[in-house]
Amino acid sequence: MKFSFKNDYSEGCHPNILQALLQSNFEQQAGYGEDEYSLQAKKLIKEKIKNPDSEVYLVSGGTQANLIVISSILRPYQCVISAAPGHILNNETGAIEATGHKVLSIDTADGKLRPSDIIPVLESHGNIPHQVMPKLVYISNSTELGTIYLAKELEELSNFCRDKGLYLFMDGARLGHGLTSEISDLTLEKVGELTDVFYLGGTKNGALIGEAIVINNKALQQDFAFNIKQKGALLAKGRLLGIQFMELMKDDLYFDLAKHANIQAMKIKNVMKERGVQFLSDTYTNQIFPIISNELIEILSEHFEFYVWKKIDERSSAIRLITSWNTGDEPVDRFIEIIKKEL
Amino acid sequence: MKFSFKNDYSEGCHPNILQALLQSNFEQQAGYGEDEYSLQAKKLIKEKIKNPDSEVYLVSGGTQANLIVISSILRPYQCVISAAPGHILNNETGAIEATGHKVLSIDTADGKLRPSDIIPVLESHGNIPHQVMPKLVYISNSTELGTIYLAKELEELSNFCRDKGLYLFMDGARLGHGLTSEISDLTLEKVGELTDVFYLGGTKNGALIGEAIVINNKALQQDFAFNIKQKGALLAKGRLLGIQFMELMKDDLYFDLAKHANIQAMKIKNVMKERGVQFLSDTYTNQIFPIISNELIEILSEHFEFYVWKKIDERSSAIRLITSWNTGDEPVDRFIEIIKKEL
Amino acid sequence: MKFSFKNDYSEGCHPNILQALLQSNFEQQAGYGEDEYSLQAKKLIKEKIKNPDSEVYLVSGGTQANLIVISSILRPYQCVISAAPGHILNNETGAIEATGHKVLSIDTADGKLRPSDIIPVLESHGNIPHQVMPKLVYISNSTELGTIYLAKELEELSNFCRDKGLYLFMDGARLGHGLTSEISDLTLEKVGELTDVFYLGGTKNGALIGEAIVINNKALQQDFAFNIKQKGALLAKGRLLGIQFMELMKDDLYFDLAKHANIQAMKIKNVMKERGVQFLSDTYTNQIFPIISNELIEILSEHFEFYVWKKIDERSSAIRLITSWNTGDEPVDRFIEIIKKEL
Amino acid sequence: MKFSFKNDYSEGCHPNILQALLQSNFEQQAGYGEDEYSLQAKKLIKEKIKNPDSEVYLVSGGTQANLIVISSILRPYQCVISAAPGHILNNETGAIEATGHKVLSIDTADGKLRPSDIIPVLESHGNIPHQVMPKLVYISNSTELGTIYLAKELEELSNFCRDKGLYLFMDGARLGHGLTSEISDLTLEKVGELTDVFYLGGTKNGALIGEAIVINNKALQQDFAFNIKQKGALLAKGRLLGIQFMELMKDDLYFDLAKHANIQAMKIKNVMKERGVQFLSDTYTNQIFPIISNELIEILSEHFEFYVWKKIDERSSAIRLITSWNTGDEPVDRFIEIIKKEL
Repeated sequence: MKFSFKNDYSEGCHPNILQALLQSNFEQQAGYGEDEYSLQAKKLIKEKIKNPDSEVYLVSGGTQANLIVISSILRPYQCVISAAPGHILNNETGAIEATGHKVLSIDTADGKLRPSDIIPVLESHGNIPHQVMPKLVYISNSTELGTIYLAKELEELSNFCRDKGLYLFMDGARLGHGLTSEISDLTLEKVGELTDVFYLGGTKNGALIGEAIVINNKALQQDFAFNIKQKGALLAKGRLLGIQFMELMKDDLYFDLAKHANIQAMKIKNVMKERGVQFLSDTYTNQIFPIISNELIEILSEHFEFYVWKKIDERSSAIRLITSWNTGDEPVDRFIEIIKKEL
Repeated sequence: MKFSFKNDYSEGCHPNILQALLQSNFEQQAGYGEDEYSLQAKKLIKEKIKNPDSEVYLVSGGTQANLIVISSILRPYQCVISAAPGHILNNETGAIEATGHKVLSIDTADGKLRPSDIIPVLESHGNIPHQVMPKLVYISNSTELGTIYLAKELEELSNFCRDKGLYLFMDGARLGHGLTSEISDLTLEKVGELTDVFYLGGTKNGALIGEAIVINNKALQQDFAFNIKQKGALLAKGRLLGIQFMELMKDDLYFDLAKHANIQAMKIKNVMKERGVQFLSDTYTNQIFPIISNELIEILSEHFEFYVWKKIDERSSAIRLITSWNTGDEPVDRFIEIIKKEL
Repeated sequence: MKFSFKNDYSEGCHPNILQALLQSNFEQQAGYGEDEYSLQAKKLIKEKIKNPDSEVYLVSGGTQANLIVISSILRPYQCVISAAPGHILNNETGAIEATGHKVLSIDTADGKLRPSDIIPVLESHGNIPHQVMPKLVYISNSTELGTIYLAKELEELSNFCRDKGLYLFMDGARLGHGLTSEISDLTLEKVGELTDVFYLGGTKNGALIGEAIVINNKALQQDFAFNIKQKGALLAKGRLLGIQFMELMKDDLYFDLAKHANIQAMKIKNVMKERGVQFLSDTYTNQIFPIISNELIEILSEHFEFYVWKKIDERSSAIRLITSWNTGDEPVDRFIEIIKKEL
Repeated sequence: MKFSFKNDYSEGCHPNILQALLQSNFEQQAGYGEDEYSLQAKKLIKEKIKNPDSEVYLVSGGTQANLIVISSILRPYQCVISAAPGHILNNETGAIEATGHKVLSIDTADGKLRPSDIIPVLESHGNIPHQVMPKLVYISNSTELGTIYLAKELEELSNFCRDKGLYLFMDGARLGHGLTSEISDLTLEKVGELTDVFYLGGTKNGALIGEAIVINNKALQQDFAFNIKQKGALLAKGRLLGIQFMELMKDDLYFDLAKHANIQAMKIKNVMKERGVQFLSDTYTNQIFPIISNELIEILSEHFEFYVWKKIDERSSAIRLITSWNTGDEPVDRFIEIIKKEL
């Protein structure tokens, strides 16, 4: 079978997790997230954030995290602001709207939001009460285009949001990759300080399932568990989530895994760049979007699986390559070899 | 007080309606739309549409009509397609999303939708089941920009929708104005034939309140009354809606009133056009959007109320003027006089 | 045609209202409730409540008022407590659940709620976060069974709710009848003091449409207008609501009309009682539920329309008779005459 | 630590599942349920049902399954009928109402529904369109009280539902236990034939997470996957669900595990019964509700964890004991020993 660079959820989980599942399997534990492992995992996460006010909640997946967080925060007439490539806008089957809330889309070149992107939206939503009220800014880090927020950018956005009475929510399905990017100067601690809510994605970084929602704004913590249960996201065997995050948080395994994924992607990127390949966006995480000829796409397709992301012109397209915590050197080297041979 | 060209709902209702309310006031009538007047009004509307399969339902307002129709038709994962200036997108406080459905926005120059506008949306929503399923096309006639659909345009759109399995829903808050425009070749009969659902707006054309929803697609009629009740739109004294539409439908009063509004707007438009004024959109209904200098805006503002719609440059803006069934000659003549004097 | 005692919304409106509609018809007024009449009506209502913190909002009907108020107040996981005969439980097509909220039903003999009815519900809803959180108590006055709250009863319930962190909401579709009942010692002022929200029903007491929602709890007023608009309840010609409540509030017309309805019902009740008729509930408002023989039902049905409410045994049923602001002496006298003859 | 009889989700999963996770861990598999394991698991389930029209969908938990199935089937104004102890009524934080649908509660002694229970509900919901329309009957097997449906009972209910145009949905969180009860004459095949939708619960019978929804009614299968995604239930690593159900379905492991749980409970039940203990309901599955003295409760509590379910009088209460696929002989024997000693 061909090696797949299609996504970062093709394999199972980090072996430590399976080991821990085996070891704990026959223990009786309390249900619904009251087990020792969940408590321990939450403790570890809070220690890393260094914000004693933060609370942690474990759920199964990204769409689930997004819809629970957003529907929990907003009043019926309030809406979300998202960059146009935002996952909630394009890839969640209207999950947010299904909870009753509009998502306003903002076109941005790199998938990131800046105060200057948001100001016109606020200005065009002043016809009270005939329009939805923008109340929550949704961003992702790394973004759906592989780009990241620098510390200064997040600070500016955070200050802007607080100034305007907007909540700031960071989708962290690939937060590990965002924070361990070679160009990142942002830390988990800083994220905990600058956002109202964010989550640490496990599914795309070593877990079988699981996202750890972190609510930093105390006012938003009240009764949050009710929302988790109501949306069908409270696992009876919460230990499954607890064990995974406990293992991932030990000794920074979570960040090591993400860093590895980034490094593997950068190896390919750098070789292509040296050979003059252009990229759809300038990324330093585990997603790269090289623009290559149809012929090269055909040759690579014989050996690898990946998405043809966007047609550029009659002769070339951008492809998307994603590496993961488990992408070994062998497929990367083989890929590079072909590039070197063909370009 | 200054005369207002701000909207077409500033006055009460056509005198015939008040007369009918007076005459019938002490009669006992069945509640919840089962009164004689509602039955008679529905009968008159069906006769005009000449589609024996159509059913008519009377509700109070446009936002109410839009949210009931759309939430009644769509399954939870299905969404609406609307032109960017669509009322449901901008001026209904997220009423459609509040019923669980996304509204996809399409940029168009004139507020109208054509098959070529919709095709790319369908093409970019094929990632089953990760994306909402476009299922209903929402248009308005006349549009929020005052433009209208010609018969051939509506036919093309209708055929396209049927071909693609999309429902076609026409917001007719200003349907009277659309159909009686001097350039319109569309008839009520044709609208009944080419749309799955539409409504005849009363509020902006002679009634106190009221829109008559017409469902032409028999499959969409099933249990529709439940939706009206559930959304709080079933008036106990349904006679109030029945009497209004009965009067408006007698002897084509509804269309005479709309035509009058159009004519008053065209008088102003033609004078401005002769003097070289540009317009934001080329309209032939009761809304016009002339682009005039800040100085002229100031002069007109001393005598009239109207909205400054859109800043064009440092020296000029488009204003919006709306006439109604009740806009007399006097304010129109006075407005024209100033134009003639100043331009 | 037979005279109908089926309900209190069979006729049009009080003549003063039609007169005011006629007089104001050609004035230009601001839209969406910003007209002078709405402002004046709200002012009059606030003066009568004597609570300077209260805010008034005008909408079209009772189901609409109920769903807007409840969905505006509750967070997604919170629910309503209602007596079993509550209108929101039985006659609104699931309107409250359609906004996402459960309604818990409590069996009570007389349609009223007391703290002792509510305590067991609170006690059985402590399995956090696996159960909905009771947060709002919904009552009606007069109730669906025609009974009323005495001042002391409402005080006890209000204190209990405040003590337990529950909001108290009074459906006042027939509040006029409740307050003017011969046994009532409750005042509008007191209702404004003891409830978080209530409404003054117009539809069943002299208006064509309209309920005046009064929010006494300042925290619940924030952004309330957005909810009205989002649910499709903001009339473009808000003057229609304003004019009606302005007229009804002048010189206590609203209460005079309700009192008249009560008196007409009591005339019939007293005659039946004297003749030993039993009643389903002991009411002193415009609804009575006498239990009579099938033969008498048949005789009365030849002359009047009314609902056979509940079968009691093979030989008798309770019927429901409702009188209104417009029920004259003639039908009442005729009804009494038959009773006197037959019993 | 004390052994817990509190529930059937205290331990991890059957060892075969962990073994299969280990073996497959580094394989690359398609995401979102398109992996080989999910396909294989679905094939095995369909073979056991022997209904070629049935389709299988894997989700994470019971509340999630319930809310997706119900919201997918019903139109906005339609509601569910459930026995009063139904899980959706009491233990899911209003998850069904949060999707917009009312759940009507029917009191029954044993947690089961019969046509005679449902008929009065249909009869009292005929005031069209003022009431919700009952459209789906929700049952569980085994029920929340541990009781089960016999083949003849399910047949009668199924015929009734088809006759009345109602959908029949069986919550199978404990379907294994229901079908392997010593008194059960119902088969999986029969369940597939008699219900429109049901699910095979994994969480409470050997899996870490997972319920396999089976839709037998072809009309209800259309676009169902959209609903799964929209509600946040489509796992990126669907293999986690696929592997579990593949293992559970091999060689009837699923049913062997459930049978074991039932047997362990019956051992305790029989000993207690011999000694004259009364039970809250007469169950033959893995849940028993013996009524014992406060003294005995205290003694047992020193050695075991369990819920005191319902106070019977001042001197005794019913307790709930639940056994699972993993309840060994040792704790059961110890429990029996105490019973024998004390009674």
